[in-house]
Amino acid sequence: MFFHKQELQYNATPAGPDVFFARKMQEILGGQYGEITVAMQYGFQAWNTKLPGKYRDLLYGIGAEEFGHVEMIAIMIAQLLEKAPASDVEAAVKGDPTMAAIIGGEDVQHAIVAGAGARAVDSNGNPWQGSYITASGNLLADFTANANAEMQGRVQAARLYHMTDDKGVRDLLSFLIARDHMHQNQWIAAARELREEGYEDLPVPSNFPLSDEVGDVAYTSMNFSDGKQAGEGSWAKGPTPDGKGEFSYSEGPTTTAAMPPVGNHGDPRLYGTTPEPNLVDKTLGKIKDIVE
Amino acid sequence: MFFHKQELQYNATPAGPDVFFARKMQEILGGQYGEITVAMQYGFQAWNTKLPGKYRDLLYGIGAEEFGHVEMIAIMIAQLLEKAPASDVEAAVKGDPTMAAIIGGEDVQHAIVAGAGARAVDSNGNPWQGSYITASGNLLADFTANANAEMQGRVQAARLYHMTDDKGVRDLLSFLIARDHMHQNQWIAAARELREEGYEDLPVPSNFPLSDEVGDVAYTSMNFSDGKQAGEGSWAKGPTPDGKGEFSYSEGPTTTAAMPPVGNHGDPRLYGTTPEPNLVDKTLGKIKDIVE
Amino acid sequence: MFFHKQELQYNATPAGPDVFFARKMQEILGGQYGEITVAMQYGFQAWNTKLPGKYRDLLYGIGAEEFGHVEMIAIMIAQLLEKAPASDVEAAVKGDPTMAAIIGGEDVQHAIVAGAGARAVDSNGNPWQGSYITASGNLLADFTANANAEMQGRVQAARLYHMTDDKGVRDLLSFLIARDHMHQNQWIAAARELREEGYEDLPVPSNFPLSDEVGDVAYTSMNFSDGKQAGEGSWAKGPTPDGKGEFSYSEGPTTTAAMPPVGNHGDPRLYGTTPEPNLVDKTLGKIKDIVE
Amino acid sequence: MFFHKQELQYNATPAGPDVFFARKMQEILGGQYGEITVAMQYGFQAWNTKLPGKYRDLLYGIGAEEFGHVEMIAIMIAQLLEKAPASDVEAAVKGDPTMAAIIGGEDVQHAIVAGAGARAVDSNGNPWQGSYITASGNLLADFTANANAEMQGRVQAARLYHMTDDKGVRDLLSFLIARDHMHQNQWIAAARELREEGYEDLPVPSNFPLSDEVGDVAYTSMNFSDGKQAGEGSWAKGPTPDGKGEFSYSEGPTTTAAMPPVGNHGDPRLYGTTPEPNLVDKTLGKIKDIVE
Amino acid sequence: MFFHKQELQYNATPAGPDVFFARKMQEILGGQYGEITVAMQYGFQAWNTKLPGKYRDLLYGIGAEEFGHVEMIAIMIAQLLEKAPASDVEAAVKGDPTMAAIIGGEDVQHAIVAGAGARAVDSNGNPWQGSYITASGNLLADFTANANAEMQGRVQAARLYHMTDDKGVRDLLSFLIARDHMHQNQWIAAARELREEGYEDLPVPSNFPLSDEVGDVAYTSMNFSDGKQAGEGSWAKGPTPDGKGEFSYSEGPTTTAAMPPVGNHGDPRLYGTTPEPNLVDKTLGKIKDIVE
Amino acid sequence: MFFHKQELQYNATPAGPDVFFARKMQEILGGQYGEITVAMQYGFQAWNTKLPGKYRDLLYGIGAEEFGHVEMIAIMIAQLLEKAPASDVEAAVKGDPTMAAIIGGEDVQHAIVAGAGARAVDSNGNPWQGSYITASGNLLADFTANANAEMQGRVQAARLYHMTDDKGVRDLLSFLIARDHMHQNQWIAAARELREEGYEDLPVPSNFPLSDEVGDVAYTSMNFSDGKQAGEGSWAKGPTPDGKGEFSYSEGPTTTAAMPPVGNHGDPRLYGTTPEPNLVDKTLGKIKDIVE
Repeated sequence: MFFHKQELQYNATPAGPDVFFARKMQEILGGQYGEITVAMQYGFQAWNTKLPGKYRDLLYGIGAEEFGHVEMIAIMIAQLLEKAPASDVEAAVKGDPTMAAIIGGEDVQHAIVAGAGARAVDSNGNPWQGSYITASGNLLADFTANANAEMQGRVQAARLYHMTDDKGVRDLLSFLIARDHMHQNQWIAAARELREEGYEDLPVPSNFPLSDEVGDVAYTSMNFSDGKQAGEGSWAKGPTPDGKGEFSYSEGPTTTAAMPPVGNHGDPRLYGTTPEPNLVDKTLGKIKDIVE
Repeated sequence: MFFHKQELQYNATPAGPDVFFARKMQEILGGQYGEITVAMQYGFQAWNTKLPGKYRDLLYGIGAEEFGHVEMIAIMIAQLLEKAPASDVEAAVKGDPTMAAIIGGEDVQHAIVAGAGARAVDSNGNPWQGSYITASGNLLADFTANANAEMQGRVQAARLYHMTDDKGVRDLLSFLIARDHMHQNQWIAAARELREEGYEDLPVPSNFPLSDEVGDVAYTSMNFSDGKQAGEGSWAKGPTPDGKGEFSYSEGPTTTAAMPPVGNHGDPRLYGTTPEPNLVDKTLGKIKDIVE
Repeated sequence: MFFHKQELQYNATPAGPDVFFARKMQEILGGQYGEITVAMQYGFQAWNTKLPGKYRDLLYGIGAEEFGHVEMIAIMIAQLLEKAPASDVEAAVKGDPTMAAIIGGEDVQHAIVAGAGARAVDSNGNPWQGSYITASGNLLADFTANANAEMQGRVQAARLYHMTDDKGVRDLLSFLIARDHMHQNQWIAAARELREEGYEDLPVPSNFPLSDEVGDVAYTSMNFSDGKQAGEGSWAKGPTPDGKGEFSYSEGPTTTAAMPPVGNHGDPRLYGTTPEPNLVDKTLGKIKDIVE
Repeated sequence: MFFHKQELQYNATPAGPDVFFARKMQEILGGQYGEITVAMQYGFQAWNTKLPGKYRDLLYGIGAEEFGHVEMIAIMIAQLLEKAPASDVEAAVKGDPTMAAIIGGEDVQHAIVAGAGARAVDSNGNPWQGSYITASGNLLADFTANANAEMQGRVQAARLYHMTDDKGVRDLLSFLIARDHMHQNQWIAAARELREEGYEDLPVPSNFPLSDEVGDVAYTSMNFSDGKQAGEGSWAKGPTPDGKGEFSYSEGPTTTAAMPPVGNHGDPRLYGTTPEPNLVDKTLGKIKDIVE
Repeated sequence: MFFHKQELQYNATPAGPDVFFARKMQEILGGQYGEITVAMQYGFQAWNTKLPGKYRDLLYGIGAEEFGHVEMIAIMIAQLLEKAPASDVEAAVKGDPTMAAIIGGEDVQHAIVAGAGARAVDSNGNPWQGSYITASGNLLADFTANANAEMQGRVQAARLYHMTDDKGVRDLLSFLIARDHMHQNQWIAAARELREEGYEDLPVPSNFPLSDEVGDVAYTSMNFSDGKQAGEGSWAKGPTPDGKGEFSYSEGPTTTAAMPPVGNHGDPRLYGTTPEPNLVDKTLGKIKDIVE
Repeated sequence: MFFHKQELQYNATPAGPDVFFARKMQEILGGQYGEITVAMQYGFQAWNTKLPGKYRDLLYGIGAEEFGHVEMIAIMIAQLLEKAPASDVEAAVKGDPTMAAIIGGEDVQHAIVAGAGARAVDSNGNPWQGSYITASGNLLADFTANANAEMQGRVQAARLYHMTDDKGVRDLLSFLIARDHMHQNQWIAAARELREEGYEDLPVPSNFPLSDEVGDVAYTSMNFSDGKQAGEGSWAKGPTPDGKGEFSYSEGPTTTAAMPPVGNHGDPRLYGTTPEPNLVDKTLGKIKDIVE
């Protein structure tokens, strides 16, 4: 169960209105790596996990915090929009070029659809979608996804920091950037602990029998481009991070197979183009007999 | 530039048709973590990077390989569908329960739309979409995304391995699982090398001044759920993975802020509900004067 | 069957071109509550209903009118775009800030994709989609959905009215706002009549046996937030609108249940993280025997 | 802020596994009118409203409850999936027709992607999306949207009730149906109170000046279909629900306008088809001079 | 304006219920090339065209017919669903394998969401979307799109014909296949006439000056695959269909260009990975001075 | 298999940065008819075809070239963005109206999400999706789709040509327009050859028995609009392009059928509105007996 408290985790009041920045801020609310994504992602990972205890507690605990971040950003966006003029006519006639740029760059649905409110969309107005989240049931894979999400989210918040000089907005971003910093550390620590405690290891999933792999390609770096430096990295020689092999390097593939022959048995009732066009009518007649 | 060779990297011929498995296999072709995703993801990372040399070579080299994986899986799916009956009527009348289950579970667009061919969709028929990929320009974040993608992809391929006993399909999956194994190792190695060479470090992005963070919350684990074990992990005490701090733990938030007051200045031309309903008509009249 | 007449229901000619407003007007053409939505929604409700007669006639009659509204708005948008310069280069060099704002705010696909034509998208360029419509087969629910759609649509049209001073555009909006006014009244009247004639009642669906509800929570207002005024409304005390009970109020939930225990029986072939990591390999071996 | 408690509002444990029903249950989790929709919808309405006090408290209070419903259904689905066999091969060989139907009807991503976990999708696997929610800032419109959402959701839950005989699942559905019943009553009561207190009235938005409507069509029922009974309803005669007029009836439109003439001034740089094909090259030459 | 008549263009009554076929039939209703697509596509082409007269009349005339096809298929689907059992429990217990396959293959939203009604989705439940349609303003391109749409639609209807033996369904399909046949002929005839009358020609758009093309690659077939037969077709030698050149053939590209150098001027405020990691902090400091 | 070469097919370096044009150029990268579409479309057609030899070679050969075009445009976009200021604050304070328009019209995700990189989206930020492509297995239908795609793509590139005066951008567009010219010719030639060699013919699919059509409507032009000129075209009289009939013309439909009666047998467990509301409870009771 979730309980709501009518307080915020941190200050979320801008110094003034800014419809263009309100649009940009939608990215960290409803974008691929926005707060809705991490809140829902950690929620689904917690609800689905077969592993109770500290890992699930961690998912629940950060997940609930992220729902509060959704709220802070939504409220910030609503305030950035609140005093802005509804009428572009009015704004345009003033002939102020800075204002003109702002008007041109706004999310017009903020006014038309939401009446100066935040929306569950990204900075280009694409609706948030359930396919942004990752919850595989394999916690090492999922904690890696979480670390990535916090990295991408912090990169975006840091970029936004330089796109405004509103002190209130920057204050909130400073807070969010700090929490993304913390959560990066937490997911990396949790992934490490999961490996140390033997729940999962590299390669993910660690219980798939390596003997069922086509083993001779599991440690070979194959270069399908003609870059000359591809073989110089630590991904092409030396021990592998999973501790189970040695990297080798090959220019191009080490295996090859012929294209499978294309059969001439396309079912004529699918009306595809096949090598024996003249046979189709006859076959068709026969097959139709069976059906009818 | 890309050049195509009419050979495959590995065998991709099933022992027999299986329309239900053909549908399932769409997941690793056109799903969130399917081969189209990794091929396009590595491509966009390479095209966008400001860092030429071995890292870009690596992106180009694996990216081109993944386009070949797209091809192998597509051709495999087309063959799994090839000998299957187009007519469910025909199939159903046979009264074979195994066949019945298979027919019920097929992707009907395989026949109706593609004429027994693969499609750029996942196993539920959702079209592949550009929002599946990640290419932020920050390579440490993106290599983490890549490691995650290879983990998720390998988990899915391993699951699929147990959903079929077709030896040809399993052979291809064994190959793909091995390559996902390899690519996991490679992205982890590349991320490590990127840090060692000083291009980027934790927390990502590493150049955002820590002094601009709200610092006192950057190392505190706050638990917004009532799980008793959340404070026991290595994410709540001890040094942080970024090497820059010590984890501390708090039950709940360490900061709080009042909800911002809701102003009464909603523009009446947006027709939202505001505290002074009786004032609206008057205000509206005045504002309309300005406009008209 | 539908028949088309090459006349419009009302004037739809703007005084002049306005590419920015053309973009905004897309919202009431191809947005969540645009004319395509209501036209298709009333159509599907009519095609699916099991209740012939006056209610179906009403759905068909308004539905067909709405397709005509789609046409009027599309033609209006095409005219707003018609005289606009195709070349932003040309526009930009003029250095007119109002023009600059307009150019920055245009829907660039209007020119690039449609050659100065309307598109089946909303004001942010999101394509119209079938998931915008509601047609459940339960007419009281659906007429409520229709009333809502006409309310949302009229709110949006009223907002747009203040974003232009083009007399031709305002004239069309005045017509559409009047029809939305009418249709609100009609769906509310139809919902009332449906209840009075005994086809359906509150709560929807009215035929689900109330004895099959967990009855003690069907009339209790539970407050999961800490707002002090939540219990003051008519939704927390007094008779309920469905005429079947009395509202009561509770701070928080009246029932609670323990989290279900997480079993340790996750199928190892799904490679999820489970409490017994060391048992997996063994189990896996056994299960694989069954399969192969 | 949101706080999570590791308890559920009600029992959510099935009697046994059922992968087909798990798929169906996704509809009320991640569908157009699922619990994610209402939770997010009430949240955004609360965050955006300019009207503090009891109405906002109501939105926050029910919104937080709905997040708990999301959790209950997700956990129910995970349990319905938990003991199901990962391998369709295994299932199919048993030749049990009931099992066959179940396997054929499952959501294959439940196993392949989520490892026997719930997903943020509907019963056909379409990801939940932000465009499902409504938050216009006009509370009478939005409470009508909320009433509709609770009606649609209750209809769906009632239908699901008859698609299972699992006592645990039915128990949870009985609870959810009761809460949907309650919430229907609450939104209807809140809409009524909003009107009584003068914040908003019919037609929505009530502050748009009726004198700016094309008034003579605001109370006329126009029938664009040839149904003979369309004029018999209370939507075609008598007083209108907004209390401001009398319905009248017209077979077909009462107004008509000629199609606007199609100008011949299509910009040649858009390469559309225009009436003067021979003039294009010449014009094009001239316009290109301006640009280059 | 559109007017509706409560008759159908052709018989649309099935012999009996078939929930699995109802799902399949959704493809030609709400799929990429379903009737909604062609109805909306011809509508938008008509509304946007700058060329009044017979071509626009043709678009309006076929467009309106297609809306009637949408209606016929929707009504057919609703009837296919009408007598089907709502309860899979009931169906499953009967143990009939044919029934089992049908139940497994149904669109579960037909029952849960639409109450045995048609939906605006394709056969996999993907909602119809505005991005399916094409309306570029260039009529030769668009008539080619229309011919393609009628071809794809007729292929799908022909495939569906063999997936049922319901005489009522086949009767309707026979009608639709005939109309698709007719419309193919019409769009091809219209495209030919458009060229003959000089409105547009090959290559499309025909007014773009060929002198502005990089001319030496406009008639060369370049083979980027290693297929040996690619040079044998009429697309590699002989006159070109546009009547303006001669095909030539090249194994691989005839032109090549070096990769552009990657600059080191990535803005540090974007936090991308750049070649000079050590310089970033310094630069960042300087740039921040400008901003703050 | 695909192999990558770190060279481009043509020059792709702009004269200077232009964030607004970078956004527009996304259309021919990730739009409905962008390069990703044609690359993937030709790929899937090749992988799915049952017809080996020159036609498949052609698909493979052009498909691989198009992947190289994806790369060229992505690299061009990245360069257009590279020197642009990250901070709109900085840009706005300069007060330059041209700059203001540019800033207002940018794709804000280019900076926030991609760090000045290209994305897999169209010019309005809609992600590319798998439903843009066509691969039916019927090559005459698909080559028509390909010809259309090259026409639409060339129209869009020609329009873009006039929206910039950057010589580097125009140079690349001149190359792409030439290749689109070539590919139009190739698909038209291939379609013609396919017919001449007897693989497929008009109407598509050519093997569906014409005797199974409702033959009397297969050659009749029916006008559902009231345009007076619709009967004047070559689509209403004279021989049909498929060489199998003569066009005739009818004002309106030549056939008509009554609406099917709406049965009263809606399953009460679906809770739809039916004509016998009073019977429902009773029926419901009876049916529930069967189930429980």
